[in-house]
Amino acid sequence: MNAHLAIGDMTAAMAAIGRAAKTAAAALATATTDRKNAALLAAAKALRQREAEIMAANEKDMAAGREKGLTPAMLDRLMLDSRRIAAMAQGLEEIAALPDPVGGVIAEWTRPNGLKISRVRTPLGVIGVIYESRPNVTADAGALCLKAGNACVLRGGSESHHSSRAIHAALVQGLKEAGLPETAIQLAPTTDRAFVGAMLAAAEWLDVIVPRGGKSLVARVQAESRVPVFAHLEGNCHVYVEASADAEMAERVVLNAKLRRTGVCGAAETLLVERAAVNTHLPRLVKALLDAGCEVRGDPEVQKVDARVKPASEEDWGTEYLDAIIAAKVVADVGEAIRHISTYGSHHTEAILTEDAGHAARFMNELDSAILLHNASTQFADGGEFGMGAEIGIATGKMHARGPVGVEQLTTFKYLVRGNGQTRP
Amino acid sequence: MNAHLAIGDMTAAMAAIGRAAKTAAAALATATTDRKNAALLAAAKALRQREAEIMAANEKDMAAGREKGLTPAMLDRLMLDSRRIAAMAQGLEEIAALPDPVGGVIAEWTRPNGLKISRVRTPLGVIGVIYESRPNVTADAGALCLKAGNACVLRGGSESHHSSRAIHAALVQGLKEAGLPETAIQLAPTTDRAFVGAMLAAAEWLDVIVPRGGKSLVARVQAESRVPVFAHLEGNCHVYVEASADAEMAERVVLNAKLRRTGVCGAAETLLVERAAVNTHLPRLVKALLDAGCEVRGDPEVQKVDARVKPASEEDWGTEYLDAIIAAKVVADVGEAIRHISTYGSHHTEAILTEDAGHAARFMNELDSAILLHNASTQFADGGEFGMGAEIGIATGKMHARGPVGVEQLTTFKYLVRGNGQTRP
Repeated sequence: MNAHLAIGDMTAAMAAIGRAAKTAAAALATATTDRKNAALLAAAKALRQREAEIMAANEKDMAAGREKGLTPAMLDRLMLDSRRIAAMAQGLEEIAALPDPVGGVIAEWTRPNGLKISRVRTPLGVIGVIYESRPNVTADAGALCLKAGNACVLRGGSESHHSSRAIHAALVQGLKEAGLPETAIQLAPTTDRAFVGAMLAAAEWLDVIVPRGGKSLVARVQAESRVPVFAHLEGNCHVYVEASADAEMAERVVLNAKLRRTGVCGAAETLLVERAAVNTHLPRLVKALLDAGCEVRGDPEVQKVDARVKPASEEDWGTEYLDAIIAAKVVADVGEAIRHISTYGSHHTEAILTEDAGHAARFMNELDSAILLHNASTQFADGGEFGMGAEIGIATGKMHARGPVGVEQLTTFKYLVRGNGQTRP
Repeated sequence: MNAHLAIGDMTAAMAAIGRAAKTAAAALATATTDRKNAALLAAAKALRQREAEIMAANEKDMAAGREKGLTPAMLDRLMLDSRRIAAMAQGLEEIAALPDPVGGVIAEWTRPNGLKISRVRTPLGVIGVIYESRPNVTADAGALCLKAGNACVLRGGSESHHSSRAIHAALVQGLKEAGLPETAIQLAPTTDRAFVGAMLAAAEWLDVIVPRGGKSLVARVQAESRVPVFAHLEGNCHVYVEASADAEMAERVVLNAKLRRTGVCGAAETLLVERAAVNTHLPRLVKALLDAGCEVRGDPEVQKVDARVKPASEEDWGTEYLDAIIAAKVVADVGEAIRHISTYGSHHTEAILTEDAGHAARFMNELDSAILLHNASTQFADGGEFGMGAEIGIATGKMHARGPVGVEQLTTFKYLVRGNGQTRP
């Protein structure tokens, strides 16, 4: 399809895709676990078999990306090699190995009148996934939606267009081999940004939209969408260290939270230290961060600790760096830490490091973030680390899904009521 | 406040209310169960004490309603008397007696690395409720939101304006006596329809909007809202009767499903009968309905059964009558019943009456309605009947809440992770 369609054409294209997706969703909703897993395993095999084809497609994207002057980090996210293709295939196999959420009984009870009520998981229906130029998302997102019995419409970034099409072909081969509708996983027919607009307006066809990508993409989706959204807007994560924390543990956890991987949404962006720990913990933490190559932007009290500390501005408290930079501030106590995080945080993930159980309880009770940790690294904010298997992202909204969004979060439920002729008085 | 404010003023009024609600929500999120219950019980007491005041306010609404030419059904919904005020007060006491969902542990598990993860219920935040002229909703909705730890903004119909204000004053008295913020339950300052527009745009202040009322209200909210919506658009509920069903049971259940109360969303609107039951069950069911005063609009096969049956048009299959009228159709089998319901239904509540367990399983598995019943009346579609306590409505959407929306459905959750210094490899 032409990459420059008019808006009306986009709407028509979305409607055609949406109609096919609805039909596929009805078939998937009652597909057996074995059949869905067969499709995933066949797709994994197809990914391996088509390695040369996928790498050739990826080379086209890489060449165009270099021409366009993409940054090395962007080119690295775009690049596929044997190892990454094998990892994608293995990812599909891991999703096949997860328990099937559909049909699972969430709760059941019997009423005094003898009615037996159960609440069982069902698919959501059709999921739209809008993402940037990470070709592996095509495989991950398609597989997660399929496992949860949902059809999906995938709209990847234009830079990864050829790679996504090649990966999508392998997914379709898997669906075909398992006897499932090919339209269960559809790729947007164009990378024109106007198609995103058509998806956001497609409340008739899509049950939910999952945006995966940078701040501006997610913000656009949240602002414009007529379809419910599972979004994580930002991960401005905090670590708050108290004087009662074991200093060696605090150093290990802070370094891990900030530097294990700086580009993930669970990476810590601000360090808060209790004033009582200014002489005991703060110098050690700041030195360890600086020595590990992390830039530290501190308030006046933190600046006093080490000449290498740069001054923090008001803007730093609200910034998700996704880089080896951390903002640092001294706070009076857990109350001030909570107020700071409530003011500047993004409701993603926050950790308290303390031996004071009361302070930990208060921090975890009063803060309204998706994930709150006591004496552990914020980098555990991840579906795999939670034992949920692969995830499509970490949601910071409050509706339906929150925290890691895995196969279970891609379902809804219905009530089944079994009687023997009961009527309501 | 003046009832004719400009749009800009509406937005400003909503922002002021929203800001106060957010502050109240933060206090409510950590309020103890005892304190929330104390507010509910004090509000119940205040409702009883203020009976004369509430009835005087209601008389103003009734007089204006008669002047305006409201239908007897609308006037009946609007009318308050001693019995109805006592019932409202008792409703608040019943909500106080419900378990507090906030802080409840939904799931907990330990990871191989020793991290203890739990998923605990938390309030949603601020809930907007938009409803029509049933004054009791002011008490019910305010109390349900409060019990779940949410602040709320209530916008009732203009016809019940004085009654709602008087009821709201009793709720505020309860909040005050319990030491909770008065702005935990706020009433819209104007019944101007433009204020509804300001609420629908208030994504910054409201976490969810619950519309309660007729089709046009709910449709407007769903079409315009920038805030997530828990809506039930319609209850076009079906009863499907097979030849294997006990005929006496089928008659009792069909009569109850249609006629117990015709104005509730769980009332049956279409009767489907298996062709094999045309001579055994259909005549008896049609006669019983007609004899009970119900109009029957049938397809040609149903029309043959009784001269009193009127012809059904295509429009009848999609109509929620909310009246003593039922559409009736003969279908070949459970497959055709499922297709009919999928085509014309509203995903609310459907029942199958049969002794065939396989057909029942297929009906309950393949249909995607919030509530599916086997051998029981559709009128059980109700939070109280499900054992959930009072409900704010029955949601037919798939996101977050589905089916009866009680206190538990007015919450979200967060993850608490407890460690002893774990870092992520």
